[in-house]
Amino acid sequence: MTQRSINADRLLGHLNALGQIGRDEAGRLVRLAASDADRAGRDAVASWMRDAGLQVVVDRVGNLFGLSHDAAEPGAAPIMLGSHIDSVIDAGIYDGCYGVLAGLEVIQTLRELGITPARPLAVAAFTNEEGVRYAPDMLGSLAYVGGLSVDDALATIGTDGSVLGAELQRIGYAGTAEPGFLRPHAYVELHIEQGPVLEREGLRLGAVENLQGISWQRVTIDGVANHAGTTPMSMRHDAGQAAARVITFLRDRVAGANAPTVATVGCLSFEPNAINVIPSRATFTVDLRDPDETRLLAEEAALARYLEELAIAEEVTISVERLARFQPVTFDAGIVALIEAAAAARGLRSRRMTSGAGHDAQMLARICPAAMIFVPSIGGISHNPREHTPDADLVAGANVLLDTVSRLCAG
Amino acid sequence: MTQRSINADRLLGHLNALGQIGRDEAGRLVRLAASDADRAGRDAVASWMRDAGLQVVVDRVGNLFGLSHDAAEPGAAPIMLGSHIDSVIDAGIYDGCYGVLAGLEVIQTLRELGITPARPLAVAAFTNEEGVRYAPDMLGSLAYVGGLSVDDALATIGTDGSVLGAELQRIGYAGTAEPGFLRPHAYVELHIEQGPVLEREGLRLGAVENLQGISWQRVTIDGVANHAGTTPMSMRHDAGQAAARVITFLRDRVAGANAPTVATVGCLSFEPNAINVIPSRATFTVDLRDPDETRLLAEEAALARYLEELAIAEEVTISVERLARFQPVTFDAGIVALIEAAAAARGLRSRRMTSGAGHDAQMLARICPAAMIFVPSIGGISHNPREHTPDADLVAGANVLLDTVSRLCAG
Repeated sequence: MTQRSINADRLLGHLNALGQIGRDEAGRLVRLAASDADRAGRDAVASWMRDAGLQVVVDRVGNLFGLSHDAAEPGAAPIMLGSHIDSVIDAGIYDGCYGVLAGLEVIQTLRELGITPARPLAVAAFTNEEGVRYAPDMLGSLAYVGGLSVDDALATIGTDGSVLGAELQRIGYAGTAEPGFLRPHAYVELHIEQGPVLEREGLRLGAVENLQGISWQRVTIDGVANHAGTTPMSMRHDAGQAAARVITFLRDRVAGANAPTVATVGCLSFEPNAINVIPSRATFTVDLRDPDETRLLAEEAALARYLEELAIAEEVTISVERLARFQPVTFDAGIVALIEAAAAARGLRSRRMTSGAGHDAQMLARICPAAMIFVPSIGGISHNPREHTPDADLVAGANVLLDTVSRLCAG
Repeated sequence: MTQRSINADRLLGHLNALGQIGRDEAGRLVRLAASDADRAGRDAVASWMRDAGLQVVVDRVGNLFGLSHDAAEPGAAPIMLGSHIDSVIDAGIYDGCYGVLAGLEVIQTLRELGITPARPLAVAAFTNEEGVRYAPDMLGSLAYVGGLSVDDALATIGTDGSVLGAELQRIGYAGTAEPGFLRPHAYVELHIEQGPVLEREGLRLGAVENLQGISWQRVTIDGVANHAGTTPMSMRHDAGQAAARVITFLRDRVAGANAPTVATVGCLSFEPNAINVIPSRATFTVDLRDPDETRLLAEEAALARYLEELAIAEEVTISVERLARFQPVTFDAGIVALIEAAAAARGLRSRRMTSGAGHDAQMLARICPAAMIFVPSIGGISHNPREHTPDADLVAGANVLLDTVSRLCAG
């Protein structure tokens, strides 16, 4: 196989053009799912799909597909590429869009080279991956694989009180195809890493072999408010003190374990939150992630035990609410090996790695072999206008996707 | 000396009557300094002073005095009793009011018994002790002892935008006497403990020998916000984690020191405060108190050293802002001994103790021998409608004040 390459200028042009669509008055990129900004972004992507000669199909939950039927076996299960184009508030231009536009670029390149792949090819932009406007995140791909009924998906109420189904109608992206209408032969998602590992290790590419399980909990500790000056240390039931002990316990345990587990307390509030009053209540979130379900369960159990001991030691009341729980996902080892081989063939230093964030690929993995490709994120920064990946890495990643698709068709 | 007693029914009647003045629509006691509610409370107290035959005098910063000139040496420096009648929002009925009304009751009792004390007696209600409406707290007594100029005091802008001088004019309590017009021979303030020590130890009375020094600081820790799923533990600069370490350091150090030091982190906030983002910033307050200035300085220095080490260890930036600093106050040992002796003579179990809160007595201690008497606060609760002291303790405290005044006049 000669070394083909995608059209770098076209890919980067599409990325930068899409990145200008959905700017608010302050210049921030805000392309929330099923908003006017999302419609404008979808319109651009659909027009580029048509330019590439693809058939544009929208399913009932708004997932947008570009289909290339030009295949040796037109009726065979397709190779699907994709990601999402909805964004967070004040987003960067790469998250999601890169996977959609690189998928389109790969298919367009193969078509332009006159190559007839063994199977049909498809590129997908799934609805509401970010979950900023509608919960849960990854809603479109979840519905696509049958994890959420179409009726429930369309009835979802947004943070702004809107109804997803009505908003899809309003923006003209309530399609007629039944979610799941195409059952892929394989799914490959190209994405920025959104973490610092590749850059720190001086690597160009990650072959993503699994995706962390996620455990989100909210912990509420109730103690007793009292005067900060007149209450001896020994007579306190300080909810804030107890919360601080949980935070240090989590870090000391997880950081000392030589395992890929990560633990984060991102939200914390005290009541009454007065300088001279001992906190009566502390509320905080715990985000625990691990690619191994057994270890994730063990971490959850260790936290639960610690909270029980702490409640006794500090004479406080502790309650825990589960906010979210996803088991880890293992991607297809065969596709991961193809990705690694493709990187090596292009002289790109790579490693196998774990996705710390959730992605549409984890949903597609329920119905077909799936894997992901990561490219470096400078500084590990994402969900932020400073999100950045060098052009050379964007192009290299798309070329590895091109090679992976070629090998999947051949294989 | 035969054992005299104050009129318990009258004292409790005055306390309960004053406690009904200044209720808002929700029934909460809100008698902020120089408000309409404060005027109503002052009117009641002034009328009770006149009923007792006292001369009512108001100084330029609104401090309200009841003076009894009926003394063996009418021109001698007076024994002054007092406290304040302004309240916090949703207050209890005892804080401050008890000291003013018990002082009035003691003077009235001595007058009714036909006793001519060696010195004139005075009872004071100082303006704006709580500091809820105007800063600083203890403003009236601070101005009385010359720690704040009258002009500065009157120009103070309140949290509601009001000007103290204008409000005092409006409510008719901008007097003409110069603050400090009476230089007391001694000052004694009777107050509820506002802490749990007396109740826990089964004691009826505290002879307050000193008042804690107070150090208030605001600490800001700046780290780096990053994705909670994709950032390995070893690559984090977690401002929230660093804040938790300060909180546990403070408690472990102070609680383990077998000293009366207290340390409290009452306010804490994270930014961006999102469940899946490592905190970039944590801001919190540190309230350190100790009756010994040398130890308080040592605690401040230990915290500063720990913050320096932590900034290096966690690779975060830490800045500290001083919000308030008061040195400890030592009360007059002779008056404290008189209080202890008076309690013992009445068969009341007592102890010497430290005031954890600030009081007008700490200002008066700058110009004359001063001390305080504490009675138990059930559950240590204060600044709260559940603030409570049993009637028997209120009466016992007032009788010890009566005995202390008698001995001060005799001595």
